[in-house]
Amino acid sequence: VAIIGAGQVGTMIGLALRSRPSHGSDAGPAQVAVFDRDRAVAERSLARGSANRILPHLEDALTADAIVLAVPVPEIVKLIDEFGRRLPVGSLVIDTGSAKRVVVKAMRRSISEGVHAIGGHPMAGTERPGAEGASAKALAGAAFVLTPIRDDGAAVGRAAGLAEAAGARPVVMDAESHDRVVALTSHLPHVMAFALAGLAGDAAREGEPVAALASTGFSSAARLSRTDPEMVAAFLSANADEVRQALGRLMERLQALDAALDDEPRLKAMLAVAHAERGTHP
Amino acid sequence: VAIIGAGQVGTMIGLALRSRPSHGSDAGPAQVAVFDRDRAVAERSLARGSANRILPHLEDALTADAIVLAVPVPEIVKLIDEFGRRLPVGSLVIDTGSAKRVVVKAMRRSISEGVHAIGGHPMAGTERPGAEGASAKALAGAAFVLTPIRDDGAAVGRAAGLAEAAGARPVVMDAESHDRVVALTSHLPHVMAFALAGLAGDAAREGEPVAALASTGFSSAARLSRTDPEMVAAFLSANADEVRQALGRLMERLQALDAALDDEPRLKAMLAVAHAERGTHP
Repeated sequence: VAIIGAGQVGTMIGLALRSRPSHGSDAGPAQVAVFDRDRAVAERSLARGSANRILPHLEDALTADAIVLAVPVPEIVKLIDEFGRRLPVGSLVIDTGSAKRVVVKAMRRSISEGVHAIGGHPMAGTERPGAEGASAKALAGAAFVLTPIRDDGAAVGRAAGLAEAAGARPVVMDAESHDRVVALTSHLPHVMAFALAGLAGDAAREGEPVAALASTGFSSAARLSRTDPEMVAAFLSANADEVRQALGRLMERLQALDAALDDEPRLKAMLAVAHAERGTHP
Repeated sequence: VAIIGAGQVGTMIGLALRSRPSHGSDAGPAQVAVFDRDRAVAERSLARGSANRILPHLEDALTADAIVLAVPVPEIVKLIDEFGRRLPVGSLVIDTGSAKRVVVKAMRRSISEGVHAIGGHPMAGTERPGAEGASAKALAGAAFVLTPIRDDGAAVGRAAGLAEAAGARPVVMDAESHDRVVALTSHLPHVMAFALAGLAGDAAREGEPVAALASTGFSSAARLSRTDPEMVAAFLSANADEVRQALGRLMERLQALDAALDDEPRLKAMLAVAHAERGTHP
């Protein structure tokens, strides 16, 4: 397995693959090689134990049995368009980006049939950037979404095997469904957390005792604003249409709650519905 | 100490007081009595260890050295207006409500000078309701806001002593500042979490695979929607003006982020500011 991109996500996958014996083979743990255009980043990832070795050149990754693209979404698309035609028939190519339609489109456009290309999104990670923030545990039992790009059972089967070898739970769906739901369950929460952190920053600058009055509830609500802004901007832009839809629905709901602030029984009834629904998902 | 209200907050305070030796005295841990209009709730709190005994009648609490009102905000106001005139000179009365202006107003109106009344808000707790959800640990090192109602050094001193005896850190400020800042650091995050949980509930009902795609980021963002909706509706309504202000600022910010979704460099710059500010508070 060659992992391109040795940040938090790439390191997490490498760690997870190397910490478990390969399924259904006598080969022992997976052999993992890692590439990062920043050599120091690759070294830190290797030091965490994500790989057996560092690949000095990106081209060295192209001949691996399986290639994992673990860079921000726009770079994933660039890599696919630049190197897709050079991938050998029979190899598996999967990415880890948080927006899937743009990736799947690029794969269809630039990777020929015979190469087993498929979109991937491990629904796990931490808000701490870089190899230092990676946690192999985060993947254990987490959903690893697979979005097929064409009728290719081998791509689905091999990608599912890879996800399971990393301890995750493969979930196959189309890229459109993924992007629509993730806009709500992941991208919108990121926007909300960054907005809240920004407001708190404004108030603190105006001299309000924000730090003294920020409790664990605030920390929890603002947690995702610790995520690398470059990565977040990349996936929000790549999924802008769906994020805009989700934001529109959120603002309608906030307005409805605003309108009920002076009517405690109605407010309580509205909150109680959301509270009860909270029981239906993790 | 008599605690009125044996839910999560009252139980937390009782547990915290009883788990530490009294400061500056040889009396050992504080003697705590608890009252709840629902006897079964009081029994569960006692079983958790929050008190030495149960008070059978609310009136039994009125003669305690210190009275802690740990019920939802509207009930705090009712209790003060109903029983404030009957409190003996020299006793300490403090509440635990999350909105302070309405409480301070009621105390000024209905509690005579000579009784040491002061607003209080322990900035700690869990989203699990009832005595079962209480955690004495949650108070350790947490801010316990004290909002004086008149020039009464003894009220501040004794309330600070009580907060410290429970392991918390007293923070004195006026009720207006408290309500303005808490609208942002606590009330708004509650509104956001309930709105998000409601949207996710809607999508799940429409058949979207929400549960499969809700990761730890979603759980963190929606965590506060597990809080008792009655309590949340009560403090949001009691602090409606400030919450409305905070909501207005949030919506402006969400609109600005929305407008930047198609302009990745600008979006990244906006997110980076909030991300950097996140470092300035917990």
